[in-house]
Amino acid sequence: MTRTLDVADLVERAARADPRAVARLISLVEDASPALREVMAALAPATGSAHVVGLTGSPGVGKSTTTSAVVTALRHNGSRVGVLAVDPSSPFSGGALLGDRVRMQEHALDPQVYIRSMASRGHLGGLSWSAPQALRVLDGAGCDVVLVETVGVGQSEVEVAALADTTVVLVAPGMGDGIQAAKAGILEVADVLVVNKADRDGAESTVRELRHMLALGSPRAPGDWRPPVIATVASSGQGVDELMGALAKHREWLQVSGAGRTRRLARASAEIEAIALRVLRSRLADVPRGEGLDALAAQVADGATDPYGAADVLVEALTTKQG
Amino acid sequence: MTRTLDVADLVERAARADPRAVARLISLVEDASPALREVMAALAPATGSAHVVGLTGSPGVGKSTTTSAVVTALRHNGSRVGVLAVDPSSPFSGGALLGDRVRMQEHALDPQVYIRSMASRGHLGGLSWSAPQALRVLDGAGCDVVLVETVGVGQSEVEVAALADTTVVLVAPGMGDGIQAAKAGILEVADVLVVNKADRDGAESTVRELRHMLALGSPRAPGDWRPPVIATVASSGQGVDELMGALAKHREWLQVSGAGRTRRLARASAEIEAIALRVLRSRLADVPRGEGLDALAAQVADGATDPYGAADVLVEALTTKQG
Repeated sequence: MTRTLDVADLVERAARADPRAVARLISLVEDASPALREVMAALAPATGSAHVVGLTGSPGVGKSTTTSAVVTALRHNGSRVGVLAVDPSSPFSGGALLGDRVRMQEHALDPQVYIRSMASRGHLGGLSWSAPQALRVLDGAGCDVVLVETVGVGQSEVEVAALADTTVVLVAPGMGDGIQAAKAGILEVADVLVVNKADRDGAESTVRELRHMLALGSPRAPGDWRPPVIATVASSGQGVDELMGALAKHREWLQVSGAGRTRRLARASAEIEAIALRVLRSRLADVPRGEGLDALAAQVADGATDPYGAADVLVEALTTKQG
Repeated sequence: MTRTLDVADLVERAARADPRAVARLISLVEDASPALREVMAALAPATGSAHVVGLTGSPGVGKSTTTSAVVTALRHNGSRVGVLAVDPSSPFSGGALLGDRVRMQEHALDPQVYIRSMASRGHLGGLSWSAPQALRVLDGAGCDVVLVETVGVGQSEVEVAALADTTVVLVAPGMGDGIQAAKAGILEVADVLVVNKADRDGAESTVRELRHMLALGSPRAPGDWRPPVIATVASSGQGVDELMGALAKHREWLQVSGAGRTRRLARASAEIEAIALRVLRSRLADVPRGEGLDALAAQVADGATDPYGAADVLVEALTTKQG
């Protein structure tokens, strides 16, 4: 078992930005280690201060380059930065993937930048289980900003938005991309829209199109956040200052409006629920025979009862047992 | 509410192969209707006799054509057939999708064939929630065989194998396809392997390659099922008799060996668990304030407790409340 772990020591080292301690803690998350209870309890007092920024967009829009440019800008301000790259389609995880990306390598040796890639598929419980806890580790380890980069495929934009304080949606120039964005519902989750590779043809019209679509969207009350559309060339740094300004402005708005608190409460609530369901699931397996899953499954297979009736028996056995 | 439903009447009409009653019942599944409890209880005595055959494979291997050829062969034997097409990547569902496919249209007017497509994404609870219940409806509606067709992307082969009594994996000719199959772990879930489009170049070597890889696989005990590799040209009917023979032989093996019972018990168990977790989830939301999710989320957001500690409080409140 993992009982040789000195959790207090690991957490203390992580708080001092020891990258190996941070790596070890995130591995515990990936392995759904029983030690996580102790880890999270030890981290709790230190959490809640990081600004979590999600970056998402289709493959090829320049997410890694933009992430890297944002990291550079944050380091200029002296911020400690965590980067979590989530690939919802890859069964592979580990620290190597992102390190391979040329653009991120310039930060690979900076002890104030912690970079990690995670796979969401094949993961125990998926992204919704592991990512919030990994964020909690980076937050507790004293990162001022945590960037969550994810490939925009299907629902992942919505998932990343649920994790982040501020969601940046990246788009590449070209007719129809804005329409794609609207179709996929990503305009609704974007706090900041970035048209990257803005030195390419069609960038201006894409910016215009996105602004138009945002204006057509649901009418906003005074004091609501209006997502800016920013043109960048992340590879040369063009527009990055403007992006940093938008991130800072959104963070301020989150605090002043109370929206940040609302988002964090929703996040904490989802996290607690996911863990509670996991606990309940393991308890379901422990319900004694007779009222247990095996016996009920046999009744269902024989047509003696139906899955709903069987589930009721199981739930009652679980919720009244300890009374 | 849906209280105007006459469930007993619907179930009785479905058992008489009224396609509109079957469609209505599957829509109740898709909508996660509260009436499902009553539906499943009414269906239970009539379930357990259908042979559930899963068909999976990469896009372009000819799944719909093969499904259609199998339906034709089953209809020659006078069997009543259900077809459930699951697209794990599509947010769209409904009866129209499959009906559009040219190959399936020949069965569209046959009252003894019920065809339905379901989307798994965007679905309440996903494929693992809705598909078993849709199968239960088709089983209870007197289908002798239910074919579940799904695009082989990622984990879906494994998911379809968990639903089916017999899993057919389709492969197209061409070097490397067998290796892809081995990589993806689909050899392990295949009860029958089909090399479709066998009139194309490379078909023989693909068959040989797959047989070789199956022989290399884990050693089998006497009496274990040895997956056959069958070459077909589904569009012309070539090899379909052999495929039908393999399906019948596997069905017999399931009965004689007891493996069929084991699979059905595992399926019933997973189904009960999924429903129980759904019930528990809704009860979590009902835990009174103070010990409730909102209050706990605030404590977590403030760093006063961690998600695990909060989950424990919630679970205890749920499991001891009614004692």
